[in-house]
Amino acid sequence: MRNIKLLLSYDGTNYHGFQRQENACTIQELLEGALAKVTRERVRVKPAGRTDTGVHARGQVVNFYTTSPIPAERFPQALNSCLPEDIVVRGAEEVSFDFHARRSAKSKLYRYTLDCGEYPDVFWRRFAWHPIYKLQAELLRQAGQYLVGTYDYAAFRASGSAVKTSVRCIKRLEWDFSQDPLWHLYIEADGFLYKMVRIIVGTLVEAARGRIRPEDVAIIRDSKNRDLAGPTAPARGLCLWEVKY
Amino acid sequence: MRNIKLLLSYDGTNYHGFQRQENACTIQELLEGALAKVTRERVRVKPAGRTDTGVHARGQVVNFYTTSPIPAERFPQALNSCLPEDIVVRGAEEVSFDFHARRSAKSKLYRYTLDCGEYPDVFWRRFAWHPIYKLQAELLRQAGQYLVGTYDYAAFRASGSAVKTSVRCIKRLEWDFSQDPLWHLYIEADGFLYKMVRIIVGTLVEAARGRIRPEDVAIIRDSKNRDLAGPTAPARGLCLWEVKY
Repeated sequence: MRNIKLLLSYDGTNYHGFQRQENACTIQELLEGALAKVTRERVRVKPAGRTDTGVHARGQVVNFYTTSPIPAERFPQALNSCLPEDIVVRGAEEVSFDFHARRSAKSKLYRYTLDCGEYPDVFWRRFAWHPIYKLQAELLRQAGQYLVGTYDYAAFRASGSAVKTSVRCIKRLEWDFSQDPLWHLYIEADGFLYKMVRIIVGTLVEAARGRIRPEDVAIIRDSKNRDLAGPTAPARGLCLWEVKY
Repeated sequence: MRNIKLLLSYDGTNYHGFQRQENACTIQELLEGALAKVTRERVRVKPAGRTDTGVHARGQVVNFYTTSPIPAERFPQALNSCLPEDIVVRGAEEVSFDFHARRSAKSKLYRYTLDCGEYPDVFWRRFAWHPIYKLQAELLRQAGQYLVGTYDYAAFRASGSAVKTSVRCIKRLEWDFSQDPLWHLYIEADGFLYKMVRIIVGTLVEAARGRIRPEDVAIIRDSKNRDLAGPTAPARGLCLWEVKY
């Protein structure tokens, strides 16, 4: 038995998220189908993070157990020939048995992209949210400062998750405006709550359009009340950028 | 009567090129459909360049005549609300009657993108060609030098065009490797022959993979023989970047 770690990218536009579902097309289903062809075994993959419907990944990591003797470095080419164009396996390596894509991760880095051009950039329409209101970059930056550190982030969690604690440590929250009018948010934490990044983005955008003050973000955070935070930003702007081990 | 100039972008993946056709979906058909709704007139647009099936545009320019009193600056918003997401009108202005999108153009600038990563970049798969062979950047640059200047470019023209002369002036042919592994070619000329950019890219790639020497490109150019040039590179990598007036 071997434990194999895969690095993969996907354009999530046409998928109902990573996790296998009964009546919808998911990344997991296609990846496991490709692995079944390549290994001739029934394989179950475990991802570092379950991405939601329409969310993308540049650096998703999964692991799976197999008895197949195929050298690890052969997996990307073999799997890619069985996968559609919008899912690409970019690396594979054999890892020790105690490696677990989610539990072994030290942190996850997501990127969220806003397209703040007057008209949407047609080449980014699948990968960015084009808000209809005018945003101020400086307010985005100021508002984000209140969400760095270890806090109970319950206000930024969608209902429907059963995790015990909503305390998380956000290590980094940085806006990159250098590709204006595309504004990229990089946000890294030891773990994220359900829809946490998208609710954070929705809340920062409320500040950037002047509906709340930047310092209100601290009040929202401390309230632990989801109703005070902003709306959930669209999935298309979100990308699982990197998983760090 | 007024003459209106529009600036538009489109993702050409799902279209059979710009020009209206009987049994296929084209940019022209959708744009004229949107203009009919907005102006309540039957409008014919003339483009700066007819892009082929699968070719994109960042800066396509068209003009059309109308008696509609709608202020020019209102056209983008009005048209975009009648167009699918993959076609975006980015600007409009009223121009003098003698302005003609194609004939008035001083030069056209195209961009062609190669994805030279080990595996295809899933976010660029619609907008870049991922060749299966290993390419040397320095050979691409050397080979391209022979295609700057005024020459008879008949060797780089696909059959099926009826233009009188195949003499064109290429003003600029530059590779930008700064976004490696995405390699962008910027090529500007007073005009292009049918499929000229894609045949040039196909020929430069032959040099970059070592099948011909860079200096052979001059021999191919002087032969005026299409059979000596390389294959036509895929449409997906090509984008009409800017039309200069």
